[in-house]
Amino acid sequence: MHFDPSTHPHRRYNPLTGEHVLVSPHRTKRPWLGQVEPPQSSILPSYDPACYLCPGNSRAGGLQNAVYDNTMVFENDFAAVLPPPGPVAPAAPHPLLTTEPVQGACDVLCFHPKHDLTLARLDLVDIEKVIDEWIAVYYKRGAQEGINYVQIFENKGAMMGCSNPHPHGQVWSLSTVPSIPAAELSSLQRYSLSSLPPSDAPKGPKGRPCLLCEYVHFEMGVAESEGRVVVKNDHWVALVPWWAIWPFEVLLLPYRRHIPSIAHLNPSEKASFADIMSRMTKRYDNLFSCSFAYSMGIHQRPVPPQDPHSSPEDDEGNIAHLHLHFTPPLLRSATVRKFLVGFELMAEPQRDLTPEQAAQRLRDCSEVHYLDLKVDGTSDHP
Amino acid sequence: MHFDPSTHPHRRYNPLTGEHVLVSPHRTKRPWLGQVEPPQSSILPSYDPACYLCPGNSRAGGLQNAVYDNTMVFENDFAAVLPPPGPVAPAAPHPLLTTEPVQGACDVLCFHPKHDLTLARLDLVDIEKVIDEWIAVYYKRGAQEGINYVQIFENKGAMMGCSNPHPHGQVWSLSTVPSIPAAELSSLQRYSLSSLPPSDAPKGPKGRPCLLCEYVHFEMGVAESEGRVVVKNDHWVALVPWWAIWPFEVLLLPYRRHIPSIAHLNPSEKASFADIMSRMTKRYDNLFSCSFAYSMGIHQRPVPPQDPHSSPEDDEGNIAHLHLHFTPPLLRSATVRKFLVGFELMAEPQRDLTPEQAAQRLRDCSEVHYLDLKVDGTSDHP
Ligand SMILES: [Zn+2]
Ligand SMILES: [Zn+2]
Repeated sequence: MHFDPSTHPHRRYNPLTGEHVLVSPHRTKRPWLGQVEPPQSSILPSYDPACYLCPGNSRAGGLQNAVYDNTMVFENDFAAVLPPPGPVAPAAPHPLLTTEPVQGACDVLCFHPKHDLTLARLDLVDIEKVIDEWIAVYYKRGAQEGINYVQIFENKGAMMGCSNPHPHGQVWSLSTVPSIPAAELSSLQRYSLSSLPPSDAPKGPKGRPCLLCEYVHFEMGVAESEGRVVVKNDHWVALVPWWAIWPFEVLLLPYRRHIPSIAHLNPSEKASFADIMSRMTKRYDNLFSCSFAYSMGIHQRPVPPQDPHSSPEDDEGNIAHLHLHFTPPLLRSATVRKFLVGFELMAEPQRDLTPEQAAQRLRDCSEVHYLDLKVDGTSDHP
Repeated sequence: MHFDPSTHPHRRYNPLTGEHVLVSPHRTKRPWLGQVEPPQSSILPSYDPACYLCPGNSRAGGLQNAVYDNTMVFENDFAAVLPPPGPVAPAAPHPLLTTEPVQGACDVLCFHPKHDLTLARLDLVDIEKVIDEWIAVYYKRGAQEGINYVQIFENKGAMMGCSNPHPHGQVWSLSTVPSIPAAELSSLQRYSLSSLPPSDAPKGPKGRPCLLCEYVHFEMGVAESEGRVVVKNDHWVALVPWWAIWPFEVLLLPYRRHIPSIAHLNPSEKASFADIMSRMTKRYDNLFSCSFAYSMGIHQRPVPPQDPHSSPEDDEGNIAHLHLHFTPPLLRSATVRKFLVGFELMAEPQRDLTPEQAAQRLRDCSEVHYLDLKVDGTSDHP
């Protein structure tokens, strides 16, 4: 019997986390009888007097926002962690019940003063300002005593539990490296020490193989119609990873050289990063003609290099390869979401649509935002 | 500074899966601004002519249900896996892109003919019939050629993407052991080979320590008011595990002896299992006076022993310790759910309410179902 990945159930291995996903491609035609979500409202004012993120408005803690022009950063009034110093760890009452105190800070980062914009609707120059702000926070928090990890992420849409449509993300800085990036860093470390057939992919520190340099190099060589690449530009590629769990999960990767963090981007790589974010989020909105909900996060060096002039070869942290994950919940329309429940909570993540089919759907989307289309289908945008 | 687990942010380690959870107990007071869910409708007919699980009705595949009295099992018309034989694995196009074909079967198991009942509303004798049916399916599928794992689970509530309120669960039988139980089995294996201070907890095969026998033994010894135990009976205990991710996550564990699977339960342990399920699900419904949504799953030996007369000592699979996970999404009312998003998808699960606080809330709930209360607050139930 011939194996057909778009027909036969199979598992795919995620070499970044060491987990599997069960793929059931024959099942994409089953009827949908489940819950539908309220559609995301797409008509918003550009300023909302009740929004705690709009310029000049008051926040929960009583503080007032600046009348900001580009981006704005402030500490979350309900932070998940508190600044150091913290108490010492108590003795475990049993070896199976261990406690590790965590310190840190939670910042909120507004992407733009206008309440009704999103990454998909921002100009490239404004997305570059967001990246600059991410780099600034990464440097600032990463240099603080006791901070060993900085997580930049965005949670977008009511479907993702996000209470405010104003374009913003978060940065959580912690004394510990969290489980998922820790697993990814271990995998990158293990891969760099493995003996593999030589390839012409870029290499990581000390000329050793990098899991993500190898992976993205392979994906760029697959014929588009059979592959997982959605869109690429001079330095970055957006693809649906081989091991994707979410229906339209996407990974953004720099493919030309090994880049440990956003602090290592040169100006052209940074402009290219803004471009790929813009093009990918426009495609997402166009997929179901809605403001597409997602969680997004950057994985990179846990903190930036202390000495920016140190040789990248000398620094163990440079084993990291900068990448950005998009994990959107929508499945088949603007109102039908995927639930991670049942078998997936108890046994293993599972998907019906194959990553190759998802990539094809996203490749078929326009890069002109649906809200910018005139009624006759043309656009004023370049 | 004195460490207070109900005030200071900390991480707890899950020795079953090897993952951590970030606990932010100081944050339970933050205001809720997010999405609210439609309340679960609680007034249902006992027979619904449109339900594909009610006795005598037709299913999607055109087949007709028997007019069943207790439980009913049938193969899912849209199974996530297909029966063997399957095609052989294709060669990986790159070592990072591996494919493993999966075969198996997906069964649906109706708990009761009445459309409007749930485990919380079933009599004990009917819950025992559900357990008997689980045991029968576990034996039947586990004995089939090529089946190496049987996952019993229930997904309850529209909030969990479950399209039909008729009381039912599922059983997925697979040629591979999925990621989560595989991780648990590795942890149990590792623990059994470790050298630990002696305790008077029950022991696993060959007199070696069992992670879950040790854990539940420790929890039973903690003073109730500081502990995580919700309710216990002759053989079983329900507790909020030290490492719980979901606000009201619960683990059901047999605590008197090491029990590898539901096939190993004696009649008294089985009756006790039905009792603890009934008491726990009643408390869940009473917590927010609603039909409480959850995913629930049984972890145990991957398949039952082929030879029921083999010595339990000889059988490596008996390293497993039977337990049942409840993972409910509700957070603070019948309409506010927890979302696993943002930081949690990108970095690490996080919770605000501590497991000890959750256990206290569940201990405070009545075991008389709120729908059985008379208007004056009394009950006809024993
Ligand atoms: Zn706003
Ligand atoms: Zn029914």
